[in-house]
Amino acid sequence: MAQNIIQKTTPTSLTLLGTGAMGAAFARTWLAAGHPVTVWNRTPARAEPLAALGATVAATAAEAVAASRLVVVCLLDDASVEKALSGLDLSGKDLVNLVTSTPGEARARAAWARERGARYLDAGIMAVPPMIGVPAAGGYVFYSGSAELFEEHRETLAVPVGTAYVGADAGFAALHDVALLSAMYGMFAGLTHAFALLRAESVPPTAAAPLLSGWLTAMTQSVRTTAEQLEGGDYTKDVVSNLAMQVAGTPTFLRTAEEQGVSPELLTPFFDLMGRRLAEGGGAEDLTGLVDLLRSA
Amino acid sequence: MAQNIIQKTTPTSLTLLGTGAMGAAFARTWLAAGHPVTVWNRTPARAEPLAALGATVAATAAEAVAASRLVVVCLLDDASVEKALSGLDLSGKDLVNLVTSTPGEARARAAWARERGARYLDAGIMAVPPMIGVPAAGGYVFYSGSAELFEEHRETLAVPVGTAYVGADAGFAALHDVALLSAMYGMFAGLTHAFALLRAESVPPTAAAPLLSGWLTAMTQSVRTTAEQLEGGDYTKDVVSNLAMQVAGTPTFLRTAEEQGVSPELLTPFFDLMGRRLAEGGGAEDLTGLVDLLRSA
Repeated sequence: MAQNIIQKTTPTSLTLLGTGAMGAAFARTWLAAGHPVTVWNRTPARAEPLAALGATVAATAAEAVAASRLVVVCLLDDASVEKALSGLDLSGKDLVNLVTSTPGEARARAAWARERGARYLDAGIMAVPPMIGVPAAGGYVFYSGSAELFEEHRETLAVPVGTAYVGADAGFAALHDVALLSAMYGMFAGLTHAFALLRAESVPPTAAAPLLSGWLTAMTQSVRTTAEQLEGGDYTKDVVSNLAMQVAGTPTFLRTAEEQGVSPELLTPFFDLMGRRLAEGGGAEDLTGLVDLLRSA
Repeated sequence: MAQNIIQKTTPTSLTLLGTGAMGAAFARTWLAAGHPVTVWNRTPARAEPLAALGATVAATAAEAVAASRLVVVCLLDDASVEKALSGLDLSGKDLVNLVTSTPGEARARAAWARERGARYLDAGIMAVPPMIGVPAAGGYVFYSGSAELFEEHRETLAVPVGTAYVGADAGFAALHDVALLSAMYGMFAGLTHAFALLRAESVPPTAAAPLLSGWLTAMTQSVRTTAEQLEGGDYTKDVVSNLAMQVAGTPTFLRTAEEQGVSPELLTPFFDLMGRRLAEGGGAEDLTGLVDLLRSA
């Protein structure tokens, strides 16, 4: 039931600073959709393949910035942004910063851009380069900052990958980005421990894989419950297995790790936090109280 | 498109030891399906509500065990099993142990049962009591040990909740159980950190919840890749974002945690492990090498 979706976008001229794997992937989809794209890269040779696809390669960042009102930055880090744009005329520009940063860095960069007369939109990319230009891959970009900039360029920004605007606070895109990726690293830590346990017994990893992914997917249903408990403030509401019961179960996990010769180092910090909350009287709660404990730590 | 599935099972008489929340949930579904059920509980009052549903309440564990060939145990822990069954005649019995244990404890209990003339099946329950008797809830039980016992009682065992037989090694059900739940606790740790970050900014948790669960669900696709890399032994195959790139990104996570006043204690053990693997020369690998590192630790 596949359908060809014809994306109708008014071709907007734009400039892209930084043609690494991610920047190049964005550039290719814009070029394919008919947008005139000016690119600049610190190492010019990296930008050359895009010239063959129709991009204009600028010799300097200043030349690239001067070429378009919409300037998209996809450099290594916040320090690279400072270095590339320092001293350039940004007045009247629409600056979209795809560089990964902290919420604080994003807010500081937004203020810096406003002082220079530019509108500013920060971004957090929830995708890897192979997902760019592939709508079915499900990647998207969090945007926050100037709502006017976002509305004006929404169609252009949506060409490479999906968009999700999360607020006028320029730090919110980075905040959402880091929050989702932090949750992912927690899941990866759990999976690392799980595969280590199973490998001690030569259980075929590909046999265990669908069991693991199916279980984790099912358990994501708890996210909604946790959110409702945080919002309502009652962490004992809709509890299925309370903290006291779960803490009682943790020794089995630690003994199993020991039996299988697996270090418990990825599990113990969470179990320690559970024990601390129980000691503080949270035995009837869900695991939700740990969120508060982590913040007061 | 819901259909009523008429479960055709030959009503098998069975005994259930332990009528806590989980045991009682199992008993209710068996009784509702027409199975004669004899129950015993250390605290008899807890078994009484099942009498009203048709269960026979035995005065002693010995009486309960004598009543049926199929004996299902749902007590607190392995020590409770020892205490309840010690000295009883188990010859010719089919013992199904639903008690949570380590793989080693399950193997020892299997040997103990065989010495007493019983067939033995160990179990790991991937469900909470409200999911028992509710097929749409997706819960199931891992079973391992006697394949003959499992085949003979498969229909009866499938009445309360789905079944998954994972091998003749009696320890494998517990191994799979603990592996999946360990992965889940890792995910919960990541989510705890994520919600703590977002709360520092009053982002409504229920607005973030679908973003978090959607992202984690999408990222479970990596489980298959990890499994294939473990099986093939080449951790650089199909790498999208290699370890060196990911380690380079970790300071942003730690700085964000610091900015938001959130302790990084749930993230740092995994980041430390990433750093160790990078130092050992695994920069071009996926995160898969961490599985080996955890085992040699």
